[in-house]
Amino acid sequence: MIRNLPTSAARIAHDISALAGITEPDRPYTRRAFTPTFLEGRQWLARRFKAAGLDVHIDPAGNLIGKRAGKTPGLGTIMVGSHSDTVPDGGRFDGIAGVAAALEVARTLAEHNIALDHDLEIIDFLAEEVSIFGVSCVGSRAISGTRPAEWLGRQSEGRTLAEAIGEVGGTARAELTRTDIVAFLELHIEQGLVLETENLDIGVVTAIAGITRIEIALEGRADHAGTTPMGARRDALTAAARVALAIERLATGLAGGQFHFAATVGEFSMVPNAANVVPSRVAMLIDARAERRDDMEDFLARLRTELSDIAAGTGVAIAEPRVISDNMPAPCDRDVLAALDAACAATGARHRRMASGAGHDTAWMSRITRAAMIFVPCAGGRSHAPEESAEPEDIALGAAVLLDAVLRLDKDLQEKP
Amino acid sequence: MIRNLPTSAARIAHDISALAGITEPDRPYTRRAFTPTFLEGRQWLARRFKAAGLDVHIDPAGNLIGKRAGKTPGLGTIMVGSHSDTVPDGGRFDGIAGVAAALEVARTLAEHNIALDHDLEIIDFLAEEVSIFGVSCVGSRAISGTRPAEWLGRQSEGRTLAEAIGEVGGTARAELTRTDIVAFLELHIEQGLVLETENLDIGVVTAIAGITRIEIALEGRADHAGTTPMGARRDALTAAARVALAIERLATGLAGGQFHFAATVGEFSMVPNAANVVPSRVAMLIDARAERRDDMEDFLARLRTELSDIAAGTGVAIAEPRVISDNMPAPCDRDVLAALDAACAATGARHRRMASGAGHDTAWMSRITRAAMIFVPCAGGRSHAPEESAEPEDIALGAAVLLDAVLRLDKDLQEKP
Repeated sequence: MIRNLPTSAARIAHDISALAGITEPDRPYTRRAFTPTFLEGRQWLARRFKAAGLDVHIDPAGNLIGKRAGKTPGLGTIMVGSHSDTVPDGGRFDGIAGVAAALEVARTLAEHNIALDHDLEIIDFLAEEVSIFGVSCVGSRAISGTRPAEWLGRQSEGRTLAEAIGEVGGTARAELTRTDIVAFLELHIEQGLVLETENLDIGVVTAIAGITRIEIALEGRADHAGTTPMGARRDALTAAARVALAIERLATGLAGGQFHFAATVGEFSMVPNAANVVPSRVAMLIDARAERRDDMEDFLARLRTELSDIAAGTGVAIAEPRVISDNMPAPCDRDVLAALDAACAATGARHRRMASGAGHDTAWMSRITRAAMIFVPCAGGRSHAPEESAEPEDIALGAAVLLDAVLRLDKDLQEKP
Repeated sequence: MIRNLPTSAARIAHDISALAGITEPDRPYTRRAFTPTFLEGRQWLARRFKAAGLDVHIDPAGNLIGKRAGKTPGLGTIMVGSHSDTVPDGGRFDGIAGVAAALEVARTLAEHNIALDHDLEIIDFLAEEVSIFGVSCVGSRAISGTRPAEWLGRQSEGRTLAEAIGEVGGTARAELTRTDIVAFLELHIEQGLVLETENLDIGVVTAIAGITRIEIALEGRADHAGTTPMGARRDALTAAARVALAIERLATGLAGGQFHFAATVGEFSMVPNAANVVPSRVAMLIDARAERRDDMEDFLARLRTELSDIAAGTGVAIAEPRVISDNMPAPCDRDVLAALDAACAATGARHRRMASGAGHDTAWMSRITRAAMIFVPCAGGRSHAPEESAEPEDIALGAAVLLDAVLRLDKDLQEKP
């Protein structure tokens, strides 16, 4: 398919490829936040931001920002961006595609001498992935006023997070919450199979699912596997198997409607894990994601009922499930969604609305501004791995959608403050 | 309950207590075969054997033997015994109770000046527990002609098993199979709850269950836990949960008859075991025990059917189950069982017949002679742990049963060669 786009797939491919080359020695695509490799990537990005005519700075939160001043002072800022950090042994596109697309938006505006009324900022958020300090979305949580104060004291490699933010160029302790941003847009690879399966170009994201992590601990009794009759056991593993299937059944039921729901037993460990001993203890970690909070509440209530039924039926004690983290769903903004739908129509992008099961900086930005995001397809839904792959043409189409939406918002948001 | 027994609970308690004191520093009841602590325990045992008037030697297989010659040369040997080695952090009674009871039998015969027609041998088998060389029943397999030749080349701590048997006092390479043993008897703690639950003194063991170990490997697909719809997953964990429940269901069905059957998923591991990734691989190790070989064959056949149904239903690939070890059930000898039943009746021991779900040296001895064993109760069925506990009075009653049975066999086996 040949399209007549204002954006350039070749330039996007070049930027992504250059960043892919900045990686830990002998590790594919590893540029974790706060490492020297990350800072090297940022220096390269800053040069590219400058070459696009942007004024570059690191904000107090440690985010890299390229700014293009608007014609009408005081209207506020339209922000576009994503993140350049990766997971260990990660991919070339997660986050990076969104930074490259945002840069391409700015570059295209400069190229066509289009001046916006609003200020435009291109952003590379600090540490979206789980960082060496064990926390994620460090930059977007800071400027959305949701970064927990105690995070700054976290230690890694002999320094605090506050000190590490200082090394990146931030100041960490200043008042950070931005109040001037009138809209935020992010492009990201889907990290799923929906667009590829349905042969679509763009997913317009209606909401970022809430993520709740739940620990379940089962305690049975370690008996001799040879001598203990089947009917006299308290086998923590077979009780845990019932729990895993109950979770799958509940989640499948909740996912049957039009709203995204998923639940996964991602971590599982067993004690004593010896061939001839009936398992005595199992620990499970559940990752549950809901587009609607009601569904998550429903899931947790039904799960508690299932757990007491399983405990009663097996004689295995199951502790009250422990919610270890619980982030609310973040609905995207109606007006920005409308602009993105219109932009898809204008660029000819085959699109659908969908929820994001994965977490993103957009979820935090939605706390302080009109925010929304778009997905582009990625091969086989693979992500967080070296084989992660997306087509520069798809990202360029996404960048054209962002550009078109930015132009619409630049106009519309003057009428609707 | 006060009984008028020929055997002494006090002497048995003393022997068990003395051996319990010979343990690895700061570890409860650890006297693993081939270690200096094990040899120290053996030296103490050899002195006690001698004090009971026995001729003591280490046989070529590394077993410690105390012999009391019979009145009628050429009739053969009646052997009684068990093992003195322990698992790491084990108990005071597993194996040791049987050695102490056998010694008490010899001591009581000497005390009452009773001369048997047959030779009597008291034996402490070498390395009944899984040893530092990764194999078990080293001594009983040697003298029953079933010790695999390749075992001798196994390495641990810088030496071969052959060399380690030499250090214990054996010769390893001689022809070892005993042909002179006319009967073998072993006393052991039950390691289960049946006797305690039914308030019985003695279990007369009809068979030692066969033990089959089976590896099952499941291969699904590692997907993003947030973005992958419930219906589009190949979750190795929820497939493995179905396998674990199928195994429990099959085993419970087979255990419903009069013959012992049990199956346990004792080892379980999962990859990648990360909170936000759908599990891609699970490995399970099944321990299955059957009193009758037919039941094991039936279990394996039904398991294969269940596995293909689960694979078809989930999209998770399940490899053909791999049988990594497969020991046949060992029925005990009818004549020795009859002698033990009669001995229980004569001593007033409340007894029942039952199968052994655990493996024992008796299983190997049954290959070369009339063999049978008895169980005594142990508290809560606990074993292979420091809290393992049995009453000296119960062991003394068991020793009296052994003594009575030995006297019956000494007479009966002359008539029935």
